[in-house]
Amino acid sequence: MRKKIDEYVSPVRIVPLGGLDQIGMNITAIEYDNSIVVIDCGVSFPEEDMLGIDLVIPDISYLKENIKKIKGFVITHGHEDHIGAIPYVLKEINAPVYATKLTMGLIESKLTEHDMMSMVKRKVVKYGQVVSLGDFKVEFIRTNHSIADAAALALTCPAGTIVHTGDFKVDYTPVWGDPIDLQRLGELGKKGVLAMMADSTNALRPGFTMSERTVGKKFDEIFENNKDSRLIIATFASNVDRVQQIIDRAYKYGRKVCVEGRSMVNIIKVAEDMDYLKVPDGVLIETDEMKKYPLEQIVLITTGSQGESMAALSRIAADLHRRVSIQPGDVVVFSSSPIPGNEKSVAKVINELGERGAKVIFQDTHVSGHACQEELKLLYSLVKPKFAIPVHGEYRHLMAQKSLLKELGYDNDHIVVAHSGDVIEVSDEKAEIVEKVEAGNVLVDGLGVGDVGNIVLRDRQNLAENGIVIVVLTLQKYTGQLIAGPDIVTRGFVYVREAEDLLNEARDVVDNSVQGCIDKRISDWSKIKNIVKDDLSEYFWKKMKRNPVILPIIMEAQV
Amino acid sequence: MRKKIDEYVSPVRIVPLGGLDQIGMNITAIEYDNSIVVIDCGVSFPEEDMLGIDLVIPDISYLKENIKKIKGFVITHGHEDHIGAIPYVLKEINAPVYATKLTMGLIESKLTEHDMMSMVKRKVVKYGQVVSLGDFKVEFIRTNHSIADAAALALTCPAGTIVHTGDFKVDYTPVWGDPIDLQRLGELGKKGVLAMMADSTNALRPGFTMSERTVGKKFDEIFENNKDSRLIIATFASNVDRVQQIIDRAYKYGRKVCVEGRSMVNIIKVAEDMDYLKVPDGVLIETDEMKKYPLEQIVLITTGSQGESMAALSRIAADLHRRVSIQPGDVVVFSSSPIPGNEKSVAKVINELGERGAKVIFQDTHVSGHACQEELKLLYSLVKPKFAIPVHGEYRHLMAQKSLLKELGYDNDHIVVAHSGDVIEVSDEKAEIVEKVEAGNVLVDGLGVGDVGNIVLRDRQNLAENGIVIVVLTLQKYTGQLIAGPDIVTRGFVYVREAEDLLNEARDVVDNSVQGCIDKRISDWSKIKNIVKDDLSEYFWKKMKRNPVILPIIMEAQV
Repeated sequence: MRKKIDEYVSPVRIVPLGGLDQIGMNITAIEYDNSIVVIDCGVSFPEEDMLGIDLVIPDISYLKENIKKIKGFVITHGHEDHIGAIPYVLKEINAPVYATKLTMGLIESKLTEHDMMSMVKRKVVKYGQVVSLGDFKVEFIRTNHSIADAAALALTCPAGTIVHTGDFKVDYTPVWGDPIDLQRLGELGKKGVLAMMADSTNALRPGFTMSERTVGKKFDEIFENNKDSRLIIATFASNVDRVQQIIDRAYKYGRKVCVEGRSMVNIIKVAEDMDYLKVPDGVLIETDEMKKYPLEQIVLITTGSQGESMAALSRIAADLHRRVSIQPGDVVVFSSSPIPGNEKSVAKVINELGERGAKVIFQDTHVSGHACQEELKLLYSLVKPKFAIPVHGEYRHLMAQKSLLKELGYDNDHIVVAHSGDVIEVSDEKAEIVEKVEAGNVLVDGLGVGDVGNIVLRDRQNLAENGIVIVVLTLQKYTGQLIAGPDIVTRGFVYVREAEDLLNEARDVVDNSVQGCIDKRISDWSKIKNIVKDDLSEYFWKKMKRNPVILPIIMEAQV
Repeated sequence: MRKKIDEYVSPVRIVPLGGLDQIGMNITAIEYDNSIVVIDCGVSFPEEDMLGIDLVIPDISYLKENIKKIKGFVITHGHEDHIGAIPYVLKEINAPVYATKLTMGLIESKLTEHDMMSMVKRKVVKYGQVVSLGDFKVEFIRTNHSIADAAALALTCPAGTIVHTGDFKVDYTPVWGDPIDLQRLGELGKKGVLAMMADSTNALRPGFTMSERTVGKKFDEIFENNKDSRLIIATFASNVDRVQQIIDRAYKYGRKVCVEGRSMVNIIKVAEDMDYLKVPDGVLIETDEMKKYPLEQIVLITTGSQGESMAALSRIAADLHRRVSIQPGDVVVFSSSPIPGNEKSVAKVINELGERGAKVIFQDTHVSGHACQEELKLLYSLVKPKFAIPVHGEYRHLMAQKSLLKELGYDNDHIVVAHSGDVIEVSDEKAEIVEKVEAGNVLVDGLGVGDVGNIVLRDRQNLAENGIVIVVLTLQKYTGQLIAGPDIVTRGFVYVREAEDLLNEARDVVDNSVQGCIDKRISDWSKIKNIVKDDLSEYFWKKMKRNPVILPIIMEAQV
């Protein structure tokens, strides 16, 4: 490591990027001098008002401007909000990717899909291993989460050590692997940690998050009490440990397991190939084989626990699934809790399942993958960072972690609650936000990345709420005379058959406006359009108190 | 009451109408022979996918077909989902309305707004009073709910007595008035009740709903601990008792109260005029007077506790309110819990308030107005109806009440879980669904009632997700030659400045399609439109994996 003249040590710069209402989640740059290490590279999921948007990827302008400094990507775990943007970002910034084994497996299945395996340098890292990236040494530390192989990161540079927890919980009895490496975190803390960035997801929740194993006990009860029914269990595709626990019970109770939902099938395949999932021979069957067995010998594991309309469970509930339909007596287990915003869709699926005669179980069948308040306190007591930078949550979650920190004795000067794009400089003396860089997000609709801007979204919102009224007319090139139209066409506005009178009257309004323009020899098309728009707008408002999008189109005929 | 030949007694018919995912909520017809009594007359609130819809009112085709039988409307309480459709429905079915005092006050403020006071016959009913309506005698029985003057109804006809609970809870220490009349319910039960329709809202929740008064105790704590801060308390506009408790504390702690939000101001005015709200002199001030007092002497009561984007609190949080802006140190209390579907909007408001420096309190500051499982059991033990018809809830809630009933010893034959439009016939021998009538809802967008059908909504959904591409061209009348266009105009599709190449290429595609048609002398416009649509559709899908709405418009020029 280079030493500075006069022993001057630059501060380390921390720049959270991307995320919608979530802060410090999808992607974060850690910068020292001429080295940048990027932590995670994930997507957000579109908000309700982002009509028609498929995916939200982080705006990486800041990284592109500093592309020469970027030494590599270090990934904490294999969830979409931490790895989902890799194919998009690495097309523009090709730097090596470091991750633990399962995480890398999931990244590779993405890269394969995008035909990018040969262009991206990858290195699988073991817990405890240290990677040198420019001025940084990055150590991967074992944690627990709702997916195996999750890691916290300790990034050491001349300015000091930064610990990033990734998404974590403390599970003393995990289903796969070992508990979080509390000893190593304590050891690091003892040596001195400059700043810690810790997961705020559950910072509003008191107590401890229960062990993944407690869900298994509930599954035992469910399998025991429902021996005469087919079981359908919906959970997050990526929760391999949950799937393992279901498979274990299925084996114990002599049931066959089938899996529905593309993302779940993919992840199970990766996990099984890599030995993160142990499936006894003959347990897994194809959905098509289900009919060979009596219903009570089947467990169906499926996606759609959030009521996502295109996922397997929702299609099964609505009787739109090709291979599975609910039979009266089926028992459906939601092994999940609804992510805020999804409550209504989940309720809809529960109602539909009930209507078809299924019994639905959704209590005590899920535990969170994130640390609650007592776990956060435990972590801070081990790592004892000089400065705390709560991340991974909405503003209210970050503030909740700040409250906890104050209970632990941290003062305001030692806690930084930032936003995406804030540049936080941390030195031995202080931690502060020093500037703001371009951050935010790029909305993806179909193949075109970044081609859906605010104007387009605002148009969609308008179209969605009010529909569109199109007025078309053709003017003759030299005379300016009206030779066709004006015609009115609507979509999403009124049911045309019932509104003939209204539309006829509207046509008269437009006729008058256009004729008025021609009589006054107005030849400026934008003026004509505005007059038509205003007159029609006024008419619809007076007549029906509605404001459709009005789009006048004028064509010029060459004859 | 007329006696039948041979002592034959017809069954009573129960017909729940209206409601979206909720069943037996907005409006219910109870029918015996030539008499129909209508219970409640409320609106639903539009679902997310009802783009641009303002209000959902019940489809009353069944009532209109039987208009001669309708003896009157009996209203259980003054909430929107029970009274909101009165102005719309009574324009078509003018029958007298019966309700308790506060409920009638709120109905009258609606009728006044629609200028319908003179045309609607109204009668205020006291608890214990019995109204004769055709073959029915209807008794109003005191209950508790989150609004004063709530009533259960006992409807007696020759077939027997039907009890309808309305929305209710058991509150032994209500803020206004007396506890639910358990004695009378017991007495009715002792005499024999044929069927009961009971509120299922909280049938999934174990235990008892807490008394409204417990919220007052939490308010004491909040006022005591935040003496140096302005308090902003958001709650449901109609919860007059909650407002009373806030005003009481404000008076006790020497604070002035102002009220923001049109619906809240309205209801407080009605409640105060009718003595349901007691406001000490000088406590209530206008929002404009707020600046005369130090912040810590103010309590602001506001609407928007559900994060509704147009409500006062949301506008305050977004700094879009004309008269109120958040000051650092303000304490904002959510005296409410989010209704399923609103969690995300509430979180957004909490984040924004936090960003402006407010402290937000949202725990233990609300109790429900609906009975939990133990209260339902209590009610059934008093009324002991022969048949049970769970109402007022989604299917899953109705099924949860059914589970409770089975614990209480009811068998399947004595429980009817119905849908809107089902006709349930109940006699001494049996209760069963005998037919299905037209039910459902009418969507209101602006002034036009019922003019937004499924096609229009589907168009809006399409427009919202994909935007629209309009292709216009003008053909000469006799020759069929292209004399203007084809032009392409888009809205909500792509940002035009960035997509020039794409749109130019699309124009070439359309040019080819149209020229092809002309060359082949295709003169059928719908055929031309389909060809243009298919070709362009294929182009956009191949190029960008997107499916905009494509709308070809052909005009005919007279020249």
